[in-house]
Amino acid sequence: MPHYFKSDILIMVKITFPDNSVKEFADNSTPLDIVKALSNSLAKEVLSATFNGQPWDATRPITQDGTLVFHKWDDEEGRHTFRHSAAHVMAEALERLYPGTKFGIGPALENGFYYDVELPDGKVITDEDFAAIEKTMMEIARENKPFERKEVSKSDALKFFADKKDNYKTELISELEDGKITEYTQGCYTDLCRGPHLPSTGYIKAVKITSIAGAYWRGNENNKMLTRVYGVAFPKQKMLDEYLILLEEAKKRDHRKIGKDMELFAFSAKVGQGLPLWLPKGTVLRETLTRFLAKIQKKYGYQQVITPHIGQKELYVTSGHYAKYGKDSFQPIHTPSENEEFLLKPMNCPHHCEIYALKPRSYKDLPLRIAEFGTVYRYEQSGELHGLTRVRSFTQDDAHLFCRPDQIKEEFCKVIDIILYIFKILHFKDYTAQVSLRDPNNKEKYIGSEEHWQMAEQGIIEAAKEKGLPTTVETGEAAFYGPKLDFMVKDALGRKWQLGTIQVDYNLPERFELEYIGNDDKKHRPVMIHRAPFGSLERFVAVLIENTEGKFPLWLTPVQAQILPISEKFNDYAYQLSEKFNDADLRTEVDDRNEKIGRKIRDNETKHIPYMLIVGEKEVAEGKVSVRKQGKQDLGAMTIEEFEAYIQNEINKELNPEE
Amino acid sequence: MPHYFKSDILIMVKITFPDNSVKEFADNSTPLDIVKALSNSLAKEVLSATFNGQPWDATRPITQDGTLVFHKWDDEEGRHTFRHSAAHVMAEALERLYPGTKFGIGPALENGFYYDVELPDGKVITDEDFAAIEKTMMEIARENKPFERKEVSKSDALKFFADKKDNYKTELISELEDGKITEYTQGCYTDLCRGPHLPSTGYIKAVKITSIAGAYWRGNENNKMLTRVYGVAFPKQKMLDEYLILLEEAKKRDHRKIGKDMELFAFSAKVGQGLPLWLPKGTVLRETLTRFLAKIQKKYGYQQVITPHIGQKELYVTSGHYAKYGKDSFQPIHTPSENEEFLLKPMNCPHHCEIYALKPRSYKDLPLRIAEFGTVYRYEQSGELHGLTRVRSFTQDDAHLFCRPDQIKEEFCKVIDIILYIFKILHFKDYTAQVSLRDPNNKEKYIGSEEHWQMAEQGIIEAAKEKGLPTTVETGEAAFYGPKLDFMVKDALGRKWQLGTIQVDYNLPERFELEYIGNDDKKHRPVMIHRAPFGSLERFVAVLIENTEGKFPLWLTPVQAQILPISEKFNDYAYQLSEKFNDADLRTEVDDRNEKIGRKIRDNETKHIPYMLIVGEKEVAEGKVSVRKQGKQDLGAMTIEEFEAYIQNEINKELNPEE
Repeated sequence: MPHYFKSDILIMVKITFPDNSVKEFADNSTPLDIVKALSNSLAKEVLSATFNGQPWDATRPITQDGTLVFHKWDDEEGRHTFRHSAAHVMAEALERLYPGTKFGIGPALENGFYYDVELPDGKVITDEDFAAIEKTMMEIARENKPFERKEVSKSDALKFFADKKDNYKTELISELEDGKITEYTQGCYTDLCRGPHLPSTGYIKAVKITSIAGAYWRGNENNKMLTRVYGVAFPKQKMLDEYLILLEEAKKRDHRKIGKDMELFAFSAKVGQGLPLWLPKGTVLRETLTRFLAKIQKKYGYQQVITPHIGQKELYVTSGHYAKYGKDSFQPIHTPSENEEFLLKPMNCPHHCEIYALKPRSYKDLPLRIAEFGTVYRYEQSGELHGLTRVRSFTQDDAHLFCRPDQIKEEFCKVIDIILYIFKILHFKDYTAQVSLRDPNNKEKYIGSEEHWQMAEQGIIEAAKEKGLPTTVETGEAAFYGPKLDFMVKDALGRKWQLGTIQVDYNLPERFELEYIGNDDKKHRPVMIHRAPFGSLERFVAVLIENTEGKFPLWLTPVQAQILPISEKFNDYAYQLSEKFNDADLRTEVDDRNEKIGRKIRDNETKHIPYMLIVGEKEVAEGKVSVRKQGKQDLGAMTIEEFEAYIQNEINKELNPEE
Repeated sequence: MPHYFKSDILIMVKITFPDNSVKEFADNSTPLDIVKALSNSLAKEVLSATFNGQPWDATRPITQDGTLVFHKWDDEEGRHTFRHSAAHVMAEALERLYPGTKFGIGPALENGFYYDVELPDGKVITDEDFAAIEKTMMEIARENKPFERKEVSKSDALKFFADKKDNYKTELISELEDGKITEYTQGCYTDLCRGPHLPSTGYIKAVKITSIAGAYWRGNENNKMLTRVYGVAFPKQKMLDEYLILLEEAKKRDHRKIGKDMELFAFSAKVGQGLPLWLPKGTVLRETLTRFLAKIQKKYGYQQVITPHIGQKELYVTSGHYAKYGKDSFQPIHTPSENEEFLLKPMNCPHHCEIYALKPRSYKDLPLRIAEFGTVYRYEQSGELHGLTRVRSFTQDDAHLFCRPDQIKEEFCKVIDIILYIFKILHFKDYTAQVSLRDPNNKEKYIGSEEHWQMAEQGIIEAAKEKGLPTTVETGEAAFYGPKLDFMVKDALGRKWQLGTIQVDYNLPERFELEYIGNDDKKHRPVMIHRAPFGSLERFVAVLIENTEGKFPLWLTPVQAQILPISEKFNDYAYQLSEKFNDADLRTEVDDRNEKIGRKIRDNETKHIPYMLIVGEKEVAEGKVSVRKQGKQDLGAMTIEEFEAYIQNEINKELNPEE
């Protein structure tokens, strides 16, 4: 008997798993059904899935053959689903607590989630409301309501949210294509959403509302200011507890707080938001870092240049940066002359291309390594600004290596050496390198010849391998102008930071028509490599502060020793010492307050200064200092020369660590 | 018999001379009459005069009592008159050669003069026309026609120049006040002019047309482009000969030429005019200078900071810089946010004031010396730009000393010490210091209390005296915000440059409401001292290049030694040496060309590199270098360490010269 109807028979779908094994399951099985068939213990952990490359609810039926990947809390995708669902639960909680709340958008974030809402009748959420929101969220979680997905027509969706007076949602829907709109419902709460979501609210075991902020609807300051409620959610209470401890620890290490306490940098409302003022101690720190890197770079054949912070608009039209940054950044600078426009430079590359182009170059001159600690300016919305990590002016430890295509691998190897040396000296032990390659199925969207791309991609992969980097390879993540290698570093709290980038660029040499004469006496186009081991001095210093809690290595710290005169009588001697140390490039300060020495020692213990030098009657008579190492270790009396030699030896050890 | 008419009697005028002597002369005597009565030999030298503070022709009658100063070629005023008259002579020559020429303005310059003219019928002047112009000028000079002054009514003047179709002159006249208009005529040429002029054209004994350029009428690019003809003129042929030799010498020393030859800096049309790109060698030079000064400043208790190159417009409204620079400089930078405007900083002071204001300051904290190598941006007309001396971006070696009023003298003494040390190290031996004080008759136009001004002026005068500076005092030349001290330096060609400035400022602390708590526990306003020993790095480097012809001192020069392998076989050894020297902070380069050693030596002799190190078989075997000092002095073979020690010793001698 022929089977005319699908329901008549048990139709099977073929599922391919990441290990390439293939199994058959009943049509309409959900990922959850499938995982249960495979392993009950695994099933408890599955939060969502990816089916045929598409995000997929664990409870959404599968009706055709395809590849299936499960996502747990350990995966970025799993956590993302979890947090997104938590955002919906928070929305429901807000609706229960404050009926009439209107909803904007509520996405998952790297560490949690938020929802932008308009509260009814001028209700203002404060810290004191957080507990009630958390309590209601946990009630909803315990109700363990399933998240139900529904495909809806545009008109139905518009009607639903219009009835609910959710005008932000109707605005969003009006921009969507009919036939591709889905809603998710848990309990009484329905939201416009692409998903995927958790099987049910009960997966959420712990929540915390972390903060609130104002946020313009769609980021546009002409729109209404909504309330952005931030939260975190976890599948275990213990995870939340650990997270909160981490948060406390991170607060203590907040570079904004430490930067202020240590007087490293400051901001001024009059100068402008996001424009850091480097104070004297921060300047010492920054310049010590700069000199450190410049010295390494010199060894590697880099040549430093200094270029202006502006350039004619045409320069950035040529480079393509105007098209990229023009509209959203600092606007062109006019002059009393007509037809003249300048831009604050968003990048140093165009200036360096112009330096390359100043004279004819031969294949023998390459690689030409042009380096600059170049300050660039990019406009960020004031709400996006954050200490030194998101600023409007920052100084890149920039360099551009102009080389022949066959030199890419060697240049990558050398840059990797520089970056690894920096990581070692600054104790960043936990890092991975991401190699970003072309999408091999979409080659037409990349600039540069097939041969050159292959050479560059192969070169990067081989360089990373030769240098023994723990590497992940991401296809399709290359920039349109070339493949790249990025370093991700975990700090002392396990937080990830992107530090260090090396990028191949076929585009700018083309746009600036750069050339060299090859050994065939013909003109060739050089390749450009952009690289910045620190990324920017601002960001790097922020990461350093958060990683070290402001306890910088001796060679780098702004004040290496605090001189403590036992009484004011010895202040002059202390200042003479300080001057001598200064001549020997040893950075000291004098605590010349009229305080008891015990008090001075206690006060200075709380500062991050590695050494205290106590001077009194005896020390003056003997021409010595009594040396105390931070952490109460007494090193006894030393002559000035002995202490200088001791410090120099410690610094040498720091800068030349054993393998 | 009573004298009813002036002409009936010999009326006398009482003339007071600069030495305060008073003599009587017949009414209507001219300065020339008067000087003839005093000394016939002096009379030949008098070019013009100042009568009762007013510029005065030597041939203009005096009809009242007053003070009289004669001007000769040796005085700025005398030379000015001479050159201005030469401009008129050139105008007459142009009119003779190119009838129908229209005249714009024709002022005297520091070294010569120019006239902006519109030539008839598309005539274009080229270098080849210069000789004819010079010849005609000398004919006019030999005709020895007197310059005749005439007061004219506005309507007569308008009619005269309208008849002549000199529309630029009529435009100028239309803006003048009737009753104050004068014309000068020599021979057939009449010009609108305030004067004064020479007695006659015969004073001019030598002329040279030096160059031509385009210049918009009244500097406005919307107006017609006129031809600017530059020239020089002298009272003796020998002076012109000497001037031309100097000009040749100056051309050889032109920092633009040397800067290009030595690859110190460059400009790019795409980046923009007046925005220097510091090339690798220039960057070494600049940074060596910077470190040199930073080290001195550290010894003197300065604290370096780094501030952004932009600030909110309001910051400069507060500081008053917007009012001063706003209209004529780079225009405000807008952002995607409304109501937000930034300015490229024209000065670093506002940023430093904000750093001062970050926390409460006590009298014990003062002086607070905030230093920054701060790049500032000022718009200059493209015609005004000149190499590194007139640029649109420059880096000041800026510092602001916030101090108590009683500390001004001591701070001046210390800054003078720094400046004199720099002058000594860089061999600027011929300098004067100008003290600029208030106009005592116009005290109301200055800000700051009487007591503070007295203290500051007295302090500066005493400081200059204590430091034994050759000083001139100029009353009325102080800025409205405070008195100042400027250093004028003569270079190897006898040209004067202003280098080094120290200025007291009562204004900005007032505008930024800066305070400190005095030892009386009350709030006081600090005084600010602006100072820049170099002025700007760009200008200073330009002066250094022109003064040294690019032969910088060893400690400063970008390449200290050129390593010359005898053949390509020794290139590797040469590069190993270069790396070793690099580790010892000795700056070397390798001449790895495949050329005979004799050729390499000859080529390198023409560069400004102090040492050549020749390496061949013998040197490799012995681990040595054969050292040749620039100028063919052979110093024999040295080990690497010996050469390093030798150079270090030479540098120490340079930086620690004996008194």
